[in-house]
Amino acid sequence: MRATVLVRPKHGILDPQGQAVESSLRQLGFAVGEARVGRVVDLEVESNDLAGARAEVERMCEQLLANPLIESYEIELAETPGE
Amino acid sequence: MRATVLVRPKHGILDPQGQAVESSLRQLGFAVGEARVGRVVDLEVESNDLAGARAEVERMCEQLLANPLIESYEIELAETPGE
Repeated sequence: MRATVLVRPKHGILDPQGQAVESSLRQLGFAVGEARVGRVVDLEVESNDLAGARAEVERMCEQLLANPLIESYEIELAETPGE
Repeated sequence: MRATVLVRPKHGILDPQGQAVESSLRQLGFAVGEARVGRVVDLEVESNDLAGARAEVERMCEQLLANPLIESYEIELAETPGE
């Protein structure tokens, strides 16, 4: 199963990369509000059932992919084409 | 309008961050296939129509948010709550 994990800085946590993007976009003439920058991780997991795959990816997030103190994560799962 | 931009390394482009995630996950005991790491950028844009907002965010991607030579991008738009 294919998993897409979005890891974002939590509200209230300073995001210097987002601030840099925001100010660069304004310098380029774009009218933008707050910008926040996070990571997207695309993974192939072996579990074939949704609940099992979600639980496994949650463990990956807690252990490696996100820092739960300052980042939130969102997991999207989709069947691998051809499975 | 709220825009979410996913920027990912193109297929065939080396992704050392993805390789590091993949090998760390395996060392932690997770059975994962290829992992790829990209960026997610959340933005607030002023355009209120979908087509206009999409065109503006595409220009931001070409000029700043992505490197079109080695990265692909995907744009998702949603109305800001309360608009």
